[in-house]
Amino acid sequence: MNAPAYTASMLAARFGLELRGEDHAITGVGTLADAGPAQLAFLANPRYRTQLVDTRAGVVVLREADVQGRQGSALIARDPYAAYAKIAALFEPKPTFAAGVHSTACVDPTARVDPAASIGPHVSIGAGSVVAAGARIGPGCVIGDACVIGEDCELVARVTLVTRVRLGKRVLLHPGVVLGADGFGIAMDAGHWIKVPQLGGVAIGDDCEIGANTTIDRGALDDTILENDVRLDNQIQIGHNVHIGAHTAMAGCAAVAGSARIGRHCLIGGGAGVLGHLEVCDRVIITAMSLVTHSIREPGEYSSGTPLMDNRSWRKSAARFKQLDRIARRLPGAEKDSE
Amino acid sequence: MNAPAYTASMLAARFGLELRGEDHAITGVGTLADAGPAQLAFLANPRYRTQLVDTRAGVVVLREADVQGRQGSALIARDPYAAYAKIAALFEPKPTFAAGVHSTACVDPTARVDPAASIGPHVSIGAGSVVAAGARIGPGCVIGDACVIGEDCELVARVTLVTRVRLGKRVLLHPGVVLGADGFGIAMDAGHWIKVPQLGGVAIGDDCEIGANTTIDRGALDDTILENDVRLDNQIQIGHNVHIGAHTAMAGCAAVAGSARIGRHCLIGGGAGVLGHLEVCDRVIITAMSLVTHSIREPGEYSSGTPLMDNRSWRKSAARFKQLDRIARRLPGAEKDSE
Amino acid sequence: MNAPAYTASMLAARFGLELRGEDHAITGVGTLADAGPAQLAFLANPRYRTQLVDTRAGVVVLREADVQGRQGSALIARDPYAAYAKIAALFEPKPTFAAGVHSTACVDPTARVDPAASIGPHVSIGAGSVVAAGARIGPGCVIGDACVIGEDCELVARVTLVTRVRLGKRVLLHPGVVLGADGFGIAMDAGHWIKVPQLGGVAIGDDCEIGANTTIDRGALDDTILENDVRLDNQIQIGHNVHIGAHTAMAGCAAVAGSARIGRHCLIGGGAGVLGHLEVCDRVIITAMSLVTHSIREPGEYSSGTPLMDNRSWRKSAARFKQLDRIARRLPGAEKDSE
Repeated sequence: MNAPAYTASMLAARFGLELRGEDHAITGVGTLADAGPAQLAFLANPRYRTQLVDTRAGVVVLREADVQGRQGSALIARDPYAAYAKIAALFEPKPTFAAGVHSTACVDPTARVDPAASIGPHVSIGAGSVVAAGARIGPGCVIGDACVIGEDCELVARVTLVTRVRLGKRVLLHPGVVLGADGFGIAMDAGHWIKVPQLGGVAIGDDCEIGANTTIDRGALDDTILENDVRLDNQIQIGHNVHIGAHTAMAGCAAVAGSARIGRHCLIGGGAGVLGHLEVCDRVIITAMSLVTHSIREPGEYSSGTPLMDNRSWRKSAARFKQLDRIARRLPGAEKDSE
Repeated sequence: MNAPAYTASMLAARFGLELRGEDHAITGVGTLADAGPAQLAFLANPRYRTQLVDTRAGVVVLREADVQGRQGSALIARDPYAAYAKIAALFEPKPTFAAGVHSTACVDPTARVDPAASIGPHVSIGAGSVVAAGARIGPGCVIGDACVIGEDCELVARVTLVTRVRLGKRVLLHPGVVLGADGFGIAMDAGHWIKVPQLGGVAIGDDCEIGANTTIDRGALDDTILENDVRLDNQIQIGHNVHIGAHTAMAGCAAVAGSARIGRHCLIGGGAGVLGHLEVCDRVIITAMSLVTHSIREPGEYSSGTPLMDNRSWRKSAARFKQLDRIARRLPGAEKDSE
Repeated sequence: MNAPAYTASMLAARFGLELRGEDHAITGVGTLADAGPAQLAFLANPRYRTQLVDTRAGVVVLREADVQGRQGSALIARDPYAAYAKIAALFEPKPTFAAGVHSTACVDPTARVDPAASIGPHVSIGAGSVVAAGARIGPGCVIGDACVIGEDCELVARVTLVTRVRLGKRVLLHPGVVLGADGFGIAMDAGHWIKVPQLGGVAIGDDCEIGANTTIDRGALDDTILENDVRLDNQIQIGHNVHIGAHTAMAGCAAVAGSARIGRHCLIGGGAGVLGHLEVCDRVIITAMSLVTHSIREPGEYSSGTPLMDNRSWRKSAARFKQLDRIARRLPGAEKDSE
């Protein structure tokens, strides 16, 4: 494969950046630490600013405020990370997939697969499901009954849509994703559990991305919903009837319990949890491994947990935590604080 | 598909409920917010009581205590959620599966598959495994050697039973479940790890349900055991030689480390953890994201963690947590509290 | 299958142990509680010392310090668990796999599969990938483009290597593992997310073991790296560009965010988290469900969280945690502690 041929000035023109210093041919991208003279690097995280001096990168995308630390050519961007993302996409190897249904795939006769869709090896597609043009269903995917896969969706490999799952356009599902499994609905009846039927579906908006081994259950009655442009990392668990607003992003291993409603433009940290039946308003940030135990009505950043300590010190603090109410009550005027 | 035809009085008779108000034909179920005049809704969670006034549902299943808030027909139940579950099951679309082995499935010649079992596309079944009548093995499942799948089990899709996994009757396994992988047994030997053979199996009782992408390792010597009617949500991790008592339910992302023993009728919250080699007695509730660090010998509810706070306030509390022992020691009489 | 025939004296000679008491034929291994007279058991965890009196095991592997509690034959080991691991391996049933490519597997014509590798049913292998001699690719695995699978690797079943994943020798991957999926790289641009191309790969060293449903994303530019002999339990999440040092072990559900660097010989507890772009030095222990929020430069044990309490007491402590800064400020001399 011949490397694509770009120059720094071409990239500046294409993405609305300002070139400082000499023009350079660019054949790829790299980190500040590793890029060579024909590669472009970027500086977004201040943590890596010290690498600016020694980088061999031909061009560096950075903020105006960082340009004085740069000897060679630079492309000035208000948001260097976003600018870099667009540039890097030019150099991304994109495998092409032949349209058509692989000979080992099993497609129900009542399913409709667009001739411009690509169905890979060992895929099965159930009754009444629809796959639109440009969609790619990778190896080993299982599509159940009554699912809809929109235009240009990509199911990388070994994705399962159980039933009544509807994907918008350009949805990207990574391996091991399970959408539309039974929500966890059980009721105690005379000492044993009975199952509550899960009659709803899952609706995923346009441009959503869902990470490897993430699970999103289908609704009990209504649907579980992701609005457009929701971005979920790996191993996230979304319970039945959750509603997630547009442009919200969640980091790995986060979990949202049933019927919670999360707003738009939220950022949920890794391993964070949201209890069921809560509401979180727009533009809320939850830090990693925090637990949301009540509804949040004000935008802002929220946290729970305790700081990391050496184990010996932590044991002392932890023992005192158990005594906290007694400790507080010893203080003059403490009673008025108690809830 | 014609909707099944029931009336409120038929449901009352069938499930031992009391009809108040006029009889109605019922063709389906819905939420209080969305059900129409031919649909049945229910009120169990008091959070939704305000929706009782405006609902258009033809019939509502509710507690005697809530009936005065209801204008139209009602079915009185001691447990409206359990009653609803039974009614909704009447309206659940149940795909039927043809008995027999799909042409793309690979079944070891020494495996025994009952003629009344259904083996889906791209399934493989290993040496000496047994599949009983009425069992359904969905697309892409992998059954290893020496497994037993009881009557009327359902493996929805892409489930893996590695080896020596025995399922009782009516066990329901959702996509991505992995049962019987090697337990995590390693021993340090001269600076590198050596693997401890995992010679046991996994035994799952009747009527268990295991959620998507949940993993249950097989035992090191004895088996990992789930008694009857254990209900596990998605992405739960169960280590080797864990024993879980009957009727215990665990919410998503909970984890139990090796050789822990959990009692009957326990409720383990989402993301909660149980350390290894502990015992938790019957009827224990663990709240979400708590960590069980010692055995529990009294029924009741247990918790760890700190409450959610705005990040600025949380930082102050977190900084003080590190000083807790020093703070406590300043108080008169504090020494006697220290452990 | 005939049980292998060993005697305690043979095992002593083979593994450098000392036999005390009579020699015995050993046909298998078991727990102290369940082993019979022809079986060998071990005592490593002091928790089980009380079982030494009643065990029916023919031989027990134990430390010199425990031998006085043993009536029958014993094998003395400095590390009984490691000695047991080696002995048990003699009795482990090892299925043999026929070399060659199963008729249902789909192998790209540009892939190279060694004739001494075993490729199972419903496997697909992408362009340019290489499978070395002795490797076993179990049922339902998906190998994408440009992957390398070293000698004697085992992919048990339903493993996915997305692209640019290189495995060393003797790597063991359990079902549901996903290596090389897109790292979670997104940048906000004019109110919606754009994807940051993930151009790197994943490099896994020799003798690594990766548990069921664990995910390791490929790097954004450089590779995500596991050095030799890293041992990961189930459902672990490793973000892009993470680097994990040799001989580090992580328990189930742990997670490491992007670009973190973890040293050698670390032990990361179950459910623990490590934030991105941090460094953790060699020989660090993180206890279960702790969150590493800053770099660690000293070997030792680290923790966060609060102890488990009955819910009623916990509620009181939790309420006081919110007041901690106010409480501390009431104390004489408290101000000097504040950060």
